[in-house]
Amino acid sequence: MIKAGIIGATGYAGAELVRLLLGHKETQIAWYGSRSYIDEKYAKVYGNMFQLVEDVCLDDKIEQLARQADVIFTATPQGFLAGVLTEEILQHAKVIDLSADYRLKDVKTYEKWYQIEHKSPQFLAEAVYGLCEVNRDQVKQARLVANPGCYTTCSILTAYPLIKEGLIDPNTLIVDAKSGTSGAGRGAKLPNLFCEVNENVKAYGVASHRHTPEIEEQLSYAAREVVTINFTPHLVPMNRGILATEYASLKKIKQADGTYAYPSYEQVKAAYDKYYEKEYFVRVLDRGVCPETKWVEGSNFVDIGFQIDERTARIVMMGAIDNLVKGAAGQAVQNMNLLFGFPETEGLQLVPMFP
Amino acid sequence: MIKAGIIGATGYAGAELVRLLLGHKETQIAWYGSRSYIDEKYAKVYGNMFQLVEDVCLDDKIEQLARQADVIFTATPQGFLAGVLTEEILQHAKVIDLSADYRLKDVKTYEKWYQIEHKSPQFLAEAVYGLCEVNRDQVKQARLVANPGCYTTCSILTAYPLIKEGLIDPNTLIVDAKSGTSGAGRGAKLPNLFCEVNENVKAYGVASHRHTPEIEEQLSYAAREVVTINFTPHLVPMNRGILATEYASLKKIKQADGTYAYPSYEQVKAAYDKYYEKEYFVRVLDRGVCPETKWVEGSNFVDIGFQIDERTARIVMMGAIDNLVKGAAGQAVQNMNLLFGFPETEGLQLVPMFP
Amino acid sequence: MIKAGIIGATGYAGAELVRLLLGHKETQIAWYGSRSYIDEKYAKVYGNMFQLVEDVCLDDKIEQLARQADVIFTATPQGFLAGVLTEEILQHAKVIDLSADYRLKDVKTYEKWYQIEHKSPQFLAEAVYGLCEVNRDQVKQARLVANPGCYTTCSILTAYPLIKEGLIDPNTLIVDAKSGTSGAGRGAKLPNLFCEVNENVKAYGVASHRHTPEIEEQLSYAAREVVTINFTPHLVPMNRGILATEYASLKKIKQADGTYAYPSYEQVKAAYDKYYEKEYFVRVLDRGVCPETKWVEGSNFVDIGFQIDERTARIVMMGAIDNLVKGAAGQAVQNMNLLFGFPETEGLQLVPMFP
Amino acid sequence: MIKAGIIGATGYAGAELVRLLLGHKETQIAWYGSRSYIDEKYAKVYGNMFQLVEDVCLDDKIEQLARQADVIFTATPQGFLAGVLTEEILQHAKVIDLSADYRLKDVKTYEKWYQIEHKSPQFLAEAVYGLCEVNRDQVKQARLVANPGCYTTCSILTAYPLIKEGLIDPNTLIVDAKSGTSGAGRGAKLPNLFCEVNENVKAYGVASHRHTPEIEEQLSYAAREVVTINFTPHLVPMNRGILATEYASLKKIKQADGTYAYPSYEQVKAAYDKYYEKEYFVRVLDRGVCPETKWVEGSNFVDIGFQIDERTARIVMMGAIDNLVKGAAGQAVQNMNLLFGFPETEGLQLVPMFP
Repeated sequence: MIKAGIIGATGYAGAELVRLLLGHKETQIAWYGSRSYIDEKYAKVYGNMFQLVEDVCLDDKIEQLARQADVIFTATPQGFLAGVLTEEILQHAKVIDLSADYRLKDVKTYEKWYQIEHKSPQFLAEAVYGLCEVNRDQVKQARLVANPGCYTTCSILTAYPLIKEGLIDPNTLIVDAKSGTSGAGRGAKLPNLFCEVNENVKAYGVASHRHTPEIEEQLSYAAREVVTINFTPHLVPMNRGILATEYASLKKIKQADGTYAYPSYEQVKAAYDKYYEKEYFVRVLDRGVCPETKWVEGSNFVDIGFQIDERTARIVMMGAIDNLVKGAAGQAVQNMNLLFGFPETEGLQLVPMFP
Repeated sequence: MIKAGIIGATGYAGAELVRLLLGHKETQIAWYGSRSYIDEKYAKVYGNMFQLVEDVCLDDKIEQLARQADVIFTATPQGFLAGVLTEEILQHAKVIDLSADYRLKDVKTYEKWYQIEHKSPQFLAEAVYGLCEVNRDQVKQARLVANPGCYTTCSILTAYPLIKEGLIDPNTLIVDAKSGTSGAGRGAKLPNLFCEVNENVKAYGVASHRHTPEIEEQLSYAAREVVTINFTPHLVPMNRGILATEYASLKKIKQADGTYAYPSYEQVKAAYDKYYEKEYFVRVLDRGVCPETKWVEGSNFVDIGFQIDERTARIVMMGAIDNLVKGAAGQAVQNMNLLFGFPETEGLQLVPMFP
Repeated sequence: MIKAGIIGATGYAGAELVRLLLGHKETQIAWYGSRSYIDEKYAKVYGNMFQLVEDVCLDDKIEQLARQADVIFTATPQGFLAGVLTEEILQHAKVIDLSADYRLKDVKTYEKWYQIEHKSPQFLAEAVYGLCEVNRDQVKQARLVANPGCYTTCSILTAYPLIKEGLIDPNTLIVDAKSGTSGAGRGAKLPNLFCEVNENVKAYGVASHRHTPEIEEQLSYAAREVVTINFTPHLVPMNRGILATEYASLKKIKQADGTYAYPSYEQVKAAYDKYYEKEYFVRVLDRGVCPETKWVEGSNFVDIGFQIDERTARIVMMGAIDNLVKGAAGQAVQNMNLLFGFPETEGLQLVPMFP
Repeated sequence: MIKAGIIGATGYAGAELVRLLLGHKETQIAWYGSRSYIDEKYAKVYGNMFQLVEDVCLDDKIEQLARQADVIFTATPQGFLAGVLTEEILQHAKVIDLSADYRLKDVKTYEKWYQIEHKSPQFLAEAVYGLCEVNRDQVKQARLVANPGCYTTCSILTAYPLIKEGLIDPNTLIVDAKSGTSGAGRGAKLPNLFCEVNENVKAYGVASHRHTPEIEEQLSYAAREVVTINFTPHLVPMNRGILATEYASLKKIKQADGTYAYPSYEQVKAAYDKYYEKEYFVRVLDRGVCPETKWVEGSNFVDIGFQIDERTARIVMMGAIDNLVKGAAGQAVQNMNLLFGFPETEGLQLVPMFP
C-alpha cells in the first residue's frame, strides 16, 4: 500500500483522481491539496464524496507532502510545478504531473505556446512523457512523469501506428477534435456557463491551441521527421468525452507483388493490430464501426475506428476517449501503476457507463 | 461463484445489470437473453462492452435457463414473468424480477393499474418486495424477489422513517418526482427522441402513474393505515437520475416536557438516523444540503435531505437516486447479495461519477 | 415610434428585451446600458446581434437616459432601481422594472426576504404589479411598473382562476417549479457552469426562495384572505422554460341541485375559461394534455393544463412559460404596449420554436 | 397573398416551414399534408401550434394541391417527388423540393449515392439548385427549385468565395461537419433516442454521406474543374445547428509586386466580402471570431469565420447555420420570395435566439 498526495484535488481532473484512487487496492490518498478550499471538508466541495471521503483540504505544500507520500499527482495550472519542483522532492517521491510543464522537451517551444517562463528547465531532460502505450518502458524507470494532455492522448494514439509504419504522410495530418466541457476545468468563467455551452458547438484556439506542439513532438518521434499538423479543438455540449477525427493522405506502399499501391483495409488494420492488439486500453473497433464517446465514458479505454476513402486517397481515423480518464486521471493512475510495479490495469478496469 | 442469467439484457436496466455484474467477484453471467437480438453479439448492441463481453444474445427460454443458472434476473415488460413463471423454475433458481409483476400483493390493484391480466397470482404471496433497507430479512429467505420500481424506491425511502415514526400525516403526502430519460426504456418511440426530450420538461401520467399503488402499499405498511397519495412524475432532459421532492404536513408529537409540538430539525434527523445510520447505501445529507442527482450518478446511493417550513407546518423531503442503479439494476444486485449471503455491498461500492 | 432605454442590457433578460424590441414596430432602442461592458460594441457581447445592432454599451446613468427615452427598462440586480429612482425620472419616462424592487407592497417583507434596505419605499404605493392578465387596467395608468418574477408569473397565472373562484383551498397550495438555467443569470458562478448543471436536477432555496412572498401577496388579493404556500424551485438542465406543478385541495362547491360536491372537470375548465378565454397569451390546453416548456419556447405564451385526482380530492395544475419571455422580457414588452396604447400583442406574436 | 401547400408538414423541416410561413405577410398555408396524421389536428402533432393553427392534416395528393396552391413545398423522403411530379403540376404551381430529388444534375450520381431509381429525370435539367446567394437569378425564373441540403448549404457557402477566386486548392478541401439531431428527422429510430444521442458525439456516414456529391457538384461549378472532397458529418447532442469546419491548402497568388505568395488575411477577407458584403443572410465575422451555432439559432443567417495557419499554409474556414432554417425551411422561404418577387428577407428577419 502506497500513499498518494494530490495537489489540485478540487479541479475536475483532481476529483477524477480521487474517484479512481478510492477504487485502487494498493493506494491510499494521504493529501487532498486545494489552495481554494483549505480546511474545508473535501466532501463539501464534491457532494458525490459524502461519507466516502472524510478528509479536509490541505494547502499545496509540496515539500512537506513529498516526505509523507510515495507519489504526488499535480493537477495544477501550467507553471505551478515548474515553479516549485526540486531535486529533494524527486528524491522523496515520484511525481506525476498532469499539467504541461514537462511535456515539451524544448523550453523555447513551451515558452512560446504557453507564454510563461519555465522555472525549472533542468528537469525537462529527465521527465518521461507518460503516454503509456508508447513509452511504457521509460515510464517504469522514471521519477518525473509528464502526463499527456487530453486532446494529445487521443490525437496521438489514433494516428500513431499509421505514422510509425509509414502508411500516411504525417505532414498532411489534420486533427479535428471535439471535446466535452469538463476539459475547460472548474473555473467560474462566463464561456463555460451552462447557457453558453448548451445547444452550441464552436471551434476555438484555431491554429493556436497549446496541444498542437505536444502532438507534433510525439508524432515527429514516430515519423522520424519533423511533423507539422493542423489541430482544431471544438467545444461540444456534453460533460465528458473527446472525439478526434483525423485526416491524412495515404502513402503508396510496396505490395507483395512488388508494385506500389495505397494500403488496403487489411493492411491498415494490421498496422493498428501490431501496436494495439495486446493493449488492454486500446480497442480497435470492427470494420465500419465509428467510435462514440459515450462508449468509453467513465473508462480508460481509447476506441479507434477508421475508413479509407478511395476517391481521395485519404484515410479518416477516429479516436474516442473520456478526457478525464484516459485523457487525465486514468492515464495518471496507469502511469503510477507502471512506476510502482502494480498490474497496469489495477483500479482501471472500469466498464464504460451507458447511457 | 454463481451463475446469473439475464432475460431482457439489451434494455437499459438489463445493460446496467451487465455493467454491475462484470464487476462482481462472485458472479458470472451465463446468459444474455434478448428476444430482439438473438444470435447477435452483445457487444454489437452495446458498443461499450466491446472486448469486455464476447457472448451472443440468446432467446428468453427461462425454463432452460433455470437449469443452468443460480439466479435469473428478468428485466422484461410487465406481464412477461407472470406469464412464464412455474414452481419448477423456482426450484432450480432464484428469480429477481425487475418488472412490476409481483410488487403488488393485491391482484386486482395490479390488473386495474396495469390493464393486463395477471397469469400467475399464486406466487404473489410468496414474492418478497425487495426494498433491501426495509425488507432485508425477508429477502434473505426468498425464492422470488420483486425488485422495486425506480420512482418507488426513491419515493418510499425518502419518506419512510417519518411515516414509520409518525412525524408526518401520510395522507397529506405529495410526491413530485423528476426522472432522467433512461427510465423510459430503449424502445424507439417518438416521445423519447432526443429533439422531443431535450430542452423540455413536462409532467406525465398525472394522477394515473403505475408506481402510485406501489408507493401507497409500502407506505401503508409503514403507517399501519391505508395511505393515499399524489404522485406526479416528470421527464427531465438527462440520461440518469431521479429526484423526488415530497411534501407532507408535520404531526405534533409529545415533547420532553409533556406538551405537543411540531418536530424540530433534530427530531426529524433522529428519525432518519434511526433507520439509516447503519445503511451503507442511504446517505442523509448535512443540514441544509439538498440532494442532487449528479452526486449519486452511477452509484447505488440514495441521498436524502429535508427542510422544515415552519410557516406552513410542512416538511419538504428530497431524495435522489440513479434510476438505473438503486432504481433498478443496483438494487437487484443488492438483493442477489442478500439471497446468496454475499456481502451486501459486493459489486456495488461504486463511487458516483462527477461530472 | 417611441424610444426605449435598457439598463442591464447585457444580462440574459436584457438581451431578450433587445431581441424582442428589434421586432417591435413602434419602438427604437436608444440606450444599451451595461456597466460591465461600457464602450464595447453590444454585438461583441452577444454574437447573435452581429450586424443587427451596431451600438456600443453605455453606462447606467438613468437620469440622463430619462431625458432621452420614453420608457426605461431596468433589468438590474435587486436594489439598483430603488437606489436611484426619483420623481424627476418618473416625470420624464415610464419605468418598467424587471427586478423585485417594487413588487412587494410591504417594505418589511421586502427587506426580510431580500436582506437589503429599500432605498425608496415612497414609490411602492404607486408602483403597479405588471401581471398584465390580472392588472391590465392599472398598468395602463402607471408610471412605474413592477414586472413580475419568472416563477411568480407562472405560479400565479396557473392557480389564479381557481383561487379567485373559490374552487381550491389556497392555503393547501404547493408549488413545485422547475426552471431552465437562464433564470440564474449570466454571472460567472461555479454552480451555473455547464458541468455542474448538465445531467443534474436539484431543488434549491427550499422554504426560503424570494419569489414566495410575491406569489403569496398576489394570491392573497385573489383569495381575499392571507395565503401562505409552499414554493420549491428546481434547476433543470435546459436553457429556457419554467414548469410549475401545483397541488391544492379542492373545495366542495354548491351544485345545481343544491348539494355540495367537488368541482368537476367542466367546472374547473369553466373557471379557467372565465379568465383566460379572451387572453391571447394564456392557452388552456385540451383535456388530458400536460403543458411542456418546449411548446412555449421563445414565445410569450403561458400554457396551462390540469388533472383532478378524485382519490385524494386534490387538483394538479400545471403551467409552462419561457422564463425569459413571459417570465421577463416578453411581459415587460406587454406592459410597455399597455402603457403606450399599442396593440397588446405588438412585437409578441412569436411562434414557439420546436424543436 | 399567395397560397402555400406543404407536403410532409409534420416532419421537423415541415414544421419549421409552418413556423416561418405563419410570420410571412404574403403567404397563407392552405394545405398541411401529412400521410401519417391524416385528419388529425395539426396542433395535436405539434403542441407549440395550439391556438395558432386550427387546420387538420391532409393526405399528400399533390395534383389536387397544385390546383389550389401557388407554391408547393415538399419536405418528403428521397424519391417521393420524383415519383409523382408531372408537367401538369408544374403548370399550376411552383414547386420547392426540400428533398434531394433534383439537386444532382447527373441521374447516375443520384442513383449511386441514394440507391433508388430516379422516376422523373426529365425534370433534372429544368430544376434550379436553390442556393440563393449563388443562383439568385436562375431561381427567379424557375418552376422547380431543388432546395439544398443542410450540410451542403453550410459547406458550400463557407468555401465558395475562396474557390471561386482561386485562393485555395479545391481538391485539398476537407469538410468536418457537426450537426444537431433535428437533422436526423422525426422518425422513431433507436439511434435518435435521447439516451443514445445525449452526452455523446460520433462521426457517421464517413466517406459515404449523400451530401458529398452535392457539395462536389456545386464546388466544381465554382472551381470550373472537377472537385473531389472529404466530407465527414458528426452528430452532436443539441437540437439545432450545423458547424462546418473546413480545411484547404492555400494557393499562392500574384501579389501587387508581381511575386507569388499565399494570400493574406486581408486578401481572403476581400474575397469573402466580394461575394457576401451585400448578402443580408451571410455574416462574415470580425477577425479572429469563430462562429457558434447558437448565434444563428432560429434565424436564416450563415456565420462565417476563418483562420490562416501559416505553419501549414492551410486555411481553416468555419461556417454555422441553423440546419432547419437556412439549412431547410428558411432557405425554402427565401427561394419562395425570389420566385414570387417578394422582398428576399420577408418572413425571415428573425433575430437569433440566445441563450
